[in-house]
Amino acid sequence: MSMLMPGLRGVLSPVLTPFNADRSPSPARFVNHCRWLLRQGVGLAVFGTNSEANSLTVSEKRALLDTLLDAGLPPERMMPGTGACALPDAIELTRHAVNSGCAGVLMLPPFFYKGVSDEGLFRGFAEVIEAVADARLRVYLYHIPPVAQVGISFDLIERLLMRYPGVIAGIKDSSGDWTHTAALLKEFQSDRFDVFAGTETLLLPTLQNGGAGCITATGNVNAAAIVRLADHWREADAAAQQQRLNDTRAIFQRYPIIAAMKAAIAWQSGDPHWTTMRPPLIELDDAQQHELQQALTQIGFEIEDASTLAADLQETSAA
Amino acid sequence: MSMLMPGLRGVLSPVLTPFNADRSPSPARFVNHCRWLLRQGVGLAVFGTNSEANSLTVSEKRALLDTLLDAGLPPERMMPGTGACALPDAIELTRHAVNSGCAGVLMLPPFFYKGVSDEGLFRGFAEVIEAVADARLRVYLYHIPPVAQVGISFDLIERLLMRYPGVIAGIKDSSGDWTHTAALLKEFQSDRFDVFAGTETLLLPTLQNGGAGCITATGNVNAAAIVRLADHWREADAAAQQQRLNDTRAIFQRYPIIAAMKAAIAWQSGDPHWTTMRPPLIELDDAQQHELQQALTQIGFEIEDASTLAADLQETSAA
Repeated sequence: MSMLMPGLRGVLSPVLTPFNADRSPSPARFVNHCRWLLRQGVGLAVFGTNSEANSLTVSEKRALLDTLLDAGLPPERMMPGTGACALPDAIELTRHAVNSGCAGVLMLPPFFYKGVSDEGLFRGFAEVIEAVADARLRVYLYHIPPVAQVGISFDLIERLLMRYPGVIAGIKDSSGDWTHTAALLKEFQSDRFDVFAGTETLLLPTLQNGGAGCITATGNVNAAAIVRLADHWREADAAAQQQRLNDTRAIFQRYPIIAAMKAAIAWQSGDPHWTTMRPPLIELDDAQQHELQQALTQIGFEIEDASTLAADLQETSAA
Repeated sequence: MSMLMPGLRGVLSPVLTPFNADRSPSPARFVNHCRWLLRQGVGLAVFGTNSEANSLTVSEKRALLDTLLDAGLPPERMMPGTGACALPDAIELTRHAVNSGCAGVLMLPPFFYKGVSDEGLFRGFAEVIEAVADARLRVYLYHIPPVAQVGISFDLIERLLMRYPGVIAGIKDSSGDWTHTAALLKEFQSDRFDVFAGTETLLLPTLQNGGAGCITATGNVNAAAIVRLADHWREADAAAQQQRLNDTRAIFQRYPIIAAMKAAIAWQSGDPHWTTMRPPLIELDDAQQHELQQALTQIGFEIEDASTLAADLQETSAA
């Protein structure tokens, strides 16, 4: 068990970023959603892939993080995404996260150039770590080759761990490949390095193999059930719980998953603005939304306390 | 022939971004290099792929563009890259370019999410165009699937042309596939839409098929020879000229091409800072630099007036 960042173990979610009708971020809905996640036992990996984080500017991300802190939400439960193509952006966001008391940051490599060398990626991470130069910094590496195309090799992890022990604190594996996650667990999981699955469909084997938990999109909608498995994975019904999680996820995965989760929240909260996305992503069409609702109704899926996810009336009328 | 943007036809180059030793942009070298390109007859596609543009922040790009204008360089010869993953960044850069009098902008689609829909990309371009809302805006679409992974389909071009005639002004095709460039020329080249090859190795067939020219990396080092072909492509030795361009390019392409071009400029200008790159890209190692110099020497390659590319002494001593 990691002794380092207890607030960043178990289940975290790349927090969906809600927008107003004009596609500006909606701070009120964002705070509501983060509060809801925390109540369900889910940590806040704000500004991840499922947060449309790369569709937000640096200043929008800084402002949203400030909003959470101003609302009194606990930074020890936050792992903001701070990676960027331009290293000065990554440095600015990482420094801001550390100065805000965030327990860790989840760092994408620069992802525009493809086929780059481990030496180049090492220098990139090193430049951020040395520019931030803060003993409180904890970096979780973000391996998501299906999207970023630029991955984090075992050699790179090893080199970073050797050079920055205590700073390099873990990895999120969104390869979608259990054999890769299993190999990471075997090679690197320790009391100083936490391996997270990138999806709850791998939560049980990850925990059985000593991993830290999962950082998963569908934590945004199916939070309680995922947390239940994380808390009770040694019990007799764990495999059955895992199967139910997989069944629910499979429904969301029939569609572009961010749009599907936003549609489900809009439906269950009664707040239609929740469907709004920034280009290049688009919302589900009416037929897809209807199908999704039917499929979720058939399995008895409900978002707990969904009404608390709507913006308060004041912002709704302004938006 | 396009009547719209005469300053943006022929040969343009994604201008290399020189850095100081601390990896901050070097305005003095940047101005020198842009002046050199213009003297050779090459237009300024600043902030392209070969400019490490996505490794620069929005404010660094704004400042570099301001530096060129303050130095008196002609905006009618400039096509800055302004695409970004976050649309507000693309809007800010595009607005700044238009307000600076730049003849056009070269726009990458948002490139983090893969497999996105044409509808989503259409909305992205539309959002930038409508936010900038300026009749002077000319958008050149940037198709570079080998790097961005997100391309510009024929359907998308058609839809954008229908909706924004006069604004959508052309495309740079960096697919690396002549059949694709040929099809673009056949379908879209007109007096209102210019097709540029993304490499000088396709310059002759592009011009023979009515295209506007090329926007090419190696314009940074082999400018005069490329411009000569663009100016004399109807002459008897055009194929031989093309072959010589290809031979020179092939040498640079043995290496990561940005690093190779920077190494060649550092060597020929005598200014070693020119090799500096931002992670995740890295400079050539000593052996590669030596090999490159040998190969270039063997074909008698020289950068004309290379000494003018060095930073002036004042900045060199500060850097």
